[in-house]
Amino acid sequence: MKYTVITGASSGIGYETALAFAERGKNLILAARREDKLEELKTEITNKYQSIDVVIKSVDLSTAENAHAFYNSLQGYELETFINNAGFGDFSLISDQDLNKVGKMLHLNIETLTILSSLFVKDYENVEGTQLINISSRAGYNVVATSVTYSATKFYVSAFTEGIAQELKTKGAKMQAKVLAPAATETEFAQRSFGTDSFEYKGKVAKYHTSKEMAEFLLALYDSDKTVGLIEEGTREFSLKEPIFPYSEPTTK
Amino acid sequence: MKYTVITGASSGIGYETALAFAERGKNLILAARREDKLEELKTEITNKYQSIDVVIKSVDLSTAENAHAFYNSLQGYELETFINNAGFGDFSLISDQDLNKVGKMLHLNIETLTILSSLFVKDYENVEGTQLINISSRAGYNVVATSVTYSATKFYVSAFTEGIAQELKTKGAKMQAKVLAPAATETEFAQRSFGTDSFEYKGKVAKYHTSKEMAEFLLALYDSDKTVGLIEEGTREFSLKEPIFPYSEPTTK
Repeated sequence: MKYTVITGASSGIGYETALAFAERGKNLILAARREDKLEELKTEITNKYQSIDVVIKSVDLSTAENAHAFYNSLQGYELETFINNAGFGDFSLISDQDLNKVGKMLHLNIETLTILSSLFVKDYENVEGTQLINISSRAGYNVVATSVTYSATKFYVSAFTEGIAQELKTKGAKMQAKVLAPAATETEFAQRSFGTDSFEYKGKVAKYHTSKEMAEFLLALYDSDKTVGLIEEGTREFSLKEPIFPYSEPTTK
Repeated sequence: MKYTVITGASSGIGYETALAFAERGKNLILAARREDKLEELKTEITNKYQSIDVVIKSVDLSTAENAHAFYNSLQGYELETFINNAGFGDFSLISDQDLNKVGKMLHLNIETLTILSSLFVKDYENVEGTQLINISSRAGYNVVATSVTYSATKFYVSAFTEGIAQELKTKGAKMQAKVLAPAATETEFAQRSFGTDSFEYKGKVAKYHTSKEMAEFLLALYDSDKTVGLIEEGTREFSLKEPIFPYSEPTTK
């Protein structure tokens, strides 16, 4: 019995991705801080798809210790897909940043993702059909004003995950590694837009996507043999791509 | 009396950069773990340039706590330039990584650099003549095989520092932020090359630079109004550039 692990599954893209993988008949291990939200999601899924096993793990992944403990708690399960979706942003100028919040963001967006990715690759890289999918952002290919530090964390995620994908291909490993780069989703959009702007956006060609749409894009990436799934900067359309950053052998070899 | 702060000053590019700024008559605050090496460097500088004040700080910058304590210890000094040079690499495949070493690398290359950069920007962004110079790597623009995680930390540094530079310009702040992207230096090269390869490289056009050359490039970047100083991938020549990554306003505004 194989499982798909999704972190940050209590809301947004993680939540919708859990539903989308459930629809595919995948057993799930869902992690997030809020146990009540995970319980709701588990009930929703098991009511709809009786044959699916849903395991919930209430964990704060913003420390390395918790990331290791979480991964260790998965030892009894056979994993198939690992989706590092947990992460958050910080919208402020460099000089206005709350460094405690920034520290947490670095630990969650970077350190925990690195620990979980590395352990999953180590244990499963030679297992047919396995996939590592890390959630980056358009801001991980394009530095966004007033979100410079957040953007930098997502550049890390993009470069790290593309690098893993290249390394696994070079080794002839069976695991595939992929990176999803969403742009603003409906939720964030709603939270951050105000009166006059909202109508203007609604009149235009899709400027943003819902979490449900992003989960569909994630499935399209999952089904493809491409490494990157991203929302194009101009058109806001989703497209599947080969790795974007240059990749080369060390010059000292 | 103004000071130039250099982290990781006990060897390599940091060491040579200290000598280069001393030659410019700059007072120095030099940080590294090895106090004896810093003492040697201080003696070398003060023997040569009697008028220069050299302050040494023995500190392990691989924890956030130490980074904050180090910055707080600078409160009595007026800072002019802050050079985040401390950092290290890890050459291994993802599945072979020592996650303790990786954790330290993330804390030093990313978290400490973020804390020190942010505090320096907050305190000095409106002071004429101030500069933040962060040391990235060619691997911060080009993912390098067998150094994927290291490369990703340097993508972070590149994106973060370019973003700060753009933000400071947009605000009309007086501080300049810059990123230096060295390629393999002589030391690293010597450590990592073996018998048959070394002769072959020596016969070709400069494939690597010495730490002293990199310090000269850093000074050229310091003197320029460009944001990025990097070693070109093909020719291995040094060039000064505008920010390389795209930078844009948030789409939700």
